[in-house]
Amino acid sequence: MIFYDCSTAPSPRRARMFIAEKGIEVETQQVDLRGDAHRQPDFLTINPHGTVPVLVTDDGTALTENIAIAGFLEAAFPETPLMGVTPEEKGRVLMWNAICEFHAGMAIAEALRNSTPALKGRALPGAVNYEQIPALAERGILRLGRFFDTLEERLSKSAYLAGDSFSMADITGFVFCDFARIVKQGIPEGNTASHAWFDTIKARPSASF
Amino acid sequence: MIFYDCSTAPSPRRARMFIAEKGIEVETQQVDLRGDAHRQPDFLTINPHGTVPVLVTDDGTALTENIAIAGFLEAAFPETPLMGVTPEEKGRVLMWNAICEFHAGMAIAEALRNSTPALKGRALPGAVNYEQIPALAERGILRLGRFFDTLEERLSKSAYLAGDSFSMADITGFVFCDFARIVKQGIPEGNTASHAWFDTIKARPSASF
Repeated sequence: MIFYDCSTAPSPRRARMFIAEKGIEVETQQVDLRGDAHRQPDFLTINPHGTVPVLVTDDGTALTENIAIAGFLEAAFPETPLMGVTPEEKGRVLMWNAICEFHAGMAIAEALRNSTPALKGRALPGAVNYEQIPALAERGILRLGRFFDTLEERLSKSAYLAGDSFSMADITGFVFCDFARIVKQGIPEGNTASHAWFDTIKARPSASF
Repeated sequence: MIFYDCSTAPSPRRARMFIAEKGIEVETQQVDLRGDAHRQPDFLTINPHGTVPVLVTDDGTALTENIAIAGFLEAAFPETPLMGVTPEEKGRVLMWNAICEFHAGMAIAEALRNSTPALKGRALPGAVNYEQIPALAERGILRLGRFFDTLEERLSKSAYLAGDSFSMADITGFVFCDFARIVKQGIPEGNTASHAWFDTIKARPSASF
């Protein structure tokens, strides 16, 4: 296996944490996003969409989405389940993972990519140029605020997002709550359940990866 | 189990096809999106995000995302696998499902919801109002065009999106290719591999659900 990573970006950090939680060793190659390495022919041969993370499996399959990398690793290394055990748990992990992706990850990306001068023409990640849409940056901040409400509501009733056990959904939520600082946002001060959950996850060794 | 559906909308159609492919019977309740039933207190108690599909399992878990409903049903009714068998297959199914969601489903939603007068203030699905952003509608059409290229490139090398077998990824791709007509788009005429794949899936009994 080869894991294409970028140590400064939030999307590959999700996969990196997942790999660390599984306790496996994977050969890693850094892709220098700031140096535009993800838009060069070499990398586009591996992932035509020009995004990281990518995990190339031993049979040569290039898995280009976080959920795909997680699903593959969960099946190949089932010992430490991170995607639930019972059908209901599996459903809840995938649900909260999707909620964090859509309402937090996408909101932060909208806010960041449509406002930062350095990302002009890079309103979407990857190899294709899209112009910035300032109104989308504003909408991203609004959506992110509502996500923090959803998170607090859930975590005031449940230790982890998908229930009593730590899962992939917590990795996704944690990485995006942490990355929100890039658009000057974060878990609101009064959201005590969310802060407690965040600190618990931050203390896991995988969070330093 | 109770399945909250809306027979005219593409997102619940994905779950409906998945259930039909599994060959299971699920009690179904229609949610009248046009009549705003998804934004009324009764439904928001079930899904605070105000979206369909929702599958409420026998233990009372409300699964509100397509991927979560699929993951639950795959684990609970494993007989007809729709999400892959080997780790690599599982990864490829999740990858192509995510690509279809992000590059087709989201692109169509952007194009439709940011341009249709009847959807003013409803630029995102669900219970919260967001203003339309006309530039986002234009970007949606551009993204969708690129998705059709990606689809053709893949299907000219593979019978189904995730490999040799029909899977959830094909359901997602098919539903969005079909729904693209709502923004006057569709698989380009010359994309023969995509058309052949589309027709194969359209012939499955589940496609009429």
